[in-house]
Amino acid sequence: MNAAVTITMCTFGRLAWRMLPVYLFAQLLGSFLAAGTIYAVYYEAIHDYCGGNLTVVGDRATAGIFATYPAPYLSLQAGFIDQVFGTGMLLLCLMALSDLKNKPAAAGSEPVAVGLLVLLIGISLGSNSGYAINPNRDIAPRVFTAIAGWGADVFRAGHGWWWVPLVAPPIGGVLGAGLYKALVELHHPFLSEQGEGLLDESKEDIGPLDNHKNNCADACV
Amino acid sequence: MNAAVTITMCTFGRLAWRMLPVYLFAQLLGSFLAAGTIYAVYYEAIHDYCGGNLTVVGDRATAGIFATYPAPYLSLQAGFIDQVFGTGMLLLCLMALSDLKNKPAAAGSEPVAVGLLVLLIGISLGSNSGYAINPNRDIAPRVFTAIAGWGADVFRAGHGWWWVPLVAPPIGGVLGAGLYKALVELHHPFLSEQGEGLLDESKEDIGPLDNHKNNCADACV
Amino acid sequence: MNAAVTITMCTFGRLAWRMLPVYLFAQLLGSFLAAGTIYAVYYEAIHDYCGGNLTVVGDRATAGIFATYPAPYLSLQAGFIDQVFGTGMLLLCLMALSDLKNKPAAAGSEPVAVGLLVLLIGISLGSNSGYAINPNRDIAPRVFTAIAGWGADVFRAGHGWWWVPLVAPPIGGVLGAGLYKALVELHHPFLSEQGEGLLDESKEDIGPLDNHKNNCADACV
Amino acid sequence: MNAAVTITMCTFGRLAWRMLPVYLFAQLLGSFLAAGTIYAVYYEAIHDYCGGNLTVVGDRATAGIFATYPAPYLSLQAGFIDQVFGTGMLLLCLMALSDLKNKPAAAGSEPVAVGLLVLLIGISLGSNSGYAINPNRDIAPRVFTAIAGWGADVFRAGHGWWWVPLVAPPIGGVLGAGLYKALVELHHPFLSEQGEGLLDESKEDIGPLDNHKNNCADACV
Repeated sequence: MNAAVTITMCTFGRLAWRMLPVYLFAQLLGSFLAAGTIYAVYYEAIHDYCGGNLTVVGDRATAGIFATYPAPYLSLQAGFIDQVFGTGMLLLCLMALSDLKNKPAAAGSEPVAVGLLVLLIGISLGSNSGYAINPNRDIAPRVFTAIAGWGADVFRAGHGWWWVPLVAPPIGGVLGAGLYKALVELHHPFLSEQGEGLLDESKEDIGPLDNHKNNCADACV
Repeated sequence: MNAAVTITMCTFGRLAWRMLPVYLFAQLLGSFLAAGTIYAVYYEAIHDYCGGNLTVVGDRATAGIFATYPAPYLSLQAGFIDQVFGTGMLLLCLMALSDLKNKPAAAGSEPVAVGLLVLLIGISLGSNSGYAINPNRDIAPRVFTAIAGWGADVFRAGHGWWWVPLVAPPIGGVLGAGLYKALVELHHPFLSEQGEGLLDESKEDIGPLDNHKNNCADACV
Repeated sequence: MNAAVTITMCTFGRLAWRMLPVYLFAQLLGSFLAAGTIYAVYYEAIHDYCGGNLTVVGDRATAGIFATYPAPYLSLQAGFIDQVFGTGMLLLCLMALSDLKNKPAAAGSEPVAVGLLVLLIGISLGSNSGYAINPNRDIAPRVFTAIAGWGADVFRAGHGWWWVPLVAPPIGGVLGAGLYKALVELHHPFLSEQGEGLLDESKEDIGPLDNHKNNCADACV
Repeated sequence: MNAAVTITMCTFGRLAWRMLPVYLFAQLLGSFLAAGTIYAVYYEAIHDYCGGNLTVVGDRATAGIFATYPAPYLSLQAGFIDQVFGTGMLLLCLMALSDLKNKPAAAGSEPVAVGLLVLLIGISLGSNSGYAINPNRDIAPRVFTAIAGWGADVFRAGHGWWWVPLVAPPIGGVLGAGLYKALVELHHPFLSEQGEGLLDESKEDIGPLDNHKNNCADACV
């Protein structure tokens, strides 16, 4: 459910590029429907809170429920770096959690591990711009709010912030996963020279692919 | 301990209908006794807080300790949808957690997984009406408070809110579990064509029944 | 580290009575040393907070750091019931967590399960009197504070509250564990008639004894 | 990532002394880079908060984001004891968690166990001086802040507090691990007399070394 993860997986050959449009479409659709569901369930709560006046900025702004908006002090460059770094950390840790030659998360605990990871990134890096670290989770609810009554302001807010969580996370994801590959995985062959038992493990390496997809279902946040 | 879960299990043939009255009776009795125990343990605390004046609405209202009451802005229809949706999410996730052909919760971690799930639903969907998502957990303490001194107000509050957490959760439960079955489980046979090893697994499918009952013991909240 | 647990284990034959004095002495000593250590580490913090005036009641009271004191509204009878009930719940759940014929906590997760359990009891039942649910954890720090400068007030506060967390928890523990035995364990033999495989399991029943002791090390809180 | 842990491991022969400089250099470098990264990501947030005036003490002090500073009431001696005790508890528990002859953390759950442990130490012992319990995690960010604009005040603050989290944690670590060895591990041979099966286990004892290193990666805080 995170297009940045999907694009990173394609980049490093864990997922075929031709599958990318299918994943992206499903992720955008899922995020859009989720935004719609939340709006339906909390329709009365939101209108009660803001007095029927759906706004993007100001005291009773409600657009932040759906998409991310940067803190007032944040420039676009700094926000871009923030998103690249946050998604980089996410993918670097996801790679480590799913690396069978490292110490992976215990079987069955991956969803909890990914959930904890996203929670930790949120606590550590969320105060600048609400840690989108996920293009579809940000753009789909933003489009939904634009349609549902908040208007074009959702694209104007934060000096036109909307494209940052769209562009920065995939870049960060590829950089973070690449960093893990460069600093850790490249040194794995050293170990595999010790025996051939790893041949069996390399077959299992195909498994984590789907496995990983499952994990990412949790990273939807 | 959640009648919505029990009714859903009966609907999908995981539990015999003739067992339903037994379960319902036990669940109502358990919820009623739990309400009585809490009242006994916190008798002095409650009377100290409200000055001996047990009320359902107002500044020092205490009825919300036992049963759920909707937020002031919530209409009955919106609350009904809120309860259907909340219980739907609960059952949809319970089905996924106990689906052996999906990635189920690790053996031994089911209670923690169900607890986390209920906690997450409470955080995400509790602000409208306190997420009853459980008919017996709501009606039994409500009847207890009616008897114990809060009076008929517990049924009058929130435009006669009391029947919503009684009727909506079973509907939501069946819809949520049905959605999971329609969108995920129906596509499982596709996998089982790959081999016959799953025949053994289908025998295990009988296991999760009791297994599931264990899980649900935690969903009492 | 909880004398109420130890006494309950002796009552139900899981621990020899002649071991009880050894356990009690070690538990009292451990609790006393823990209180002393906390006082040493936070000596300057405590004296900075209370201005060098160590008091049991009042605005800047600090005795509550070490032993429990009831809320102002709590009568001795209600506090007694509160402690009996809290410790009863603790032992009832400990019995369930360590019951091999029930669904026990996953191997290796017992300390976390017991920790969660004590945390939950603290959240649910702590507001009346700070959930001692442990005689030695309460009396040893209380004696320490009496010696260290808080004086005899630690025994006078709350209408002479000090003996309640000493007497009520063992009673609650025996009642709670007894309730579990009466309502759940007595119905186990029904299962064992189905086969003889359980003979092996009954041998393992001896194991949980030490096992359980390990768990309880966490229940010190 | 904790030099106090590394030095303790060297002291007790779990890590060769000649590896120590390599570990220390990597730990200092990692902590320094981490401080730099946080400064880069939160550059605008920090300057917005303090108005461009980077200070170590006062209302809008920001140096505490990077290194630890003691509470105003804390003397150097008390802070020293605080750090020795905190790191002692950390190492004592780490030894217990990784002791195969005791009840170790479940395979795969070590990172979570170590994370919980550090969280608990932080909650229990953090209010005096922010629980550095890690020399490199404290000195490297301190040097970074000295360079980045906070100036020599980072070494002057708290009566020259800076050397305490540098010197006290290794002492505490050795004492804590030594205490565990003296009170628990020395009594293990008693068990091993019961059979020779433990010979295999003693081979596994070599494993925990690397294993342990993995754990400690989480102790970086």
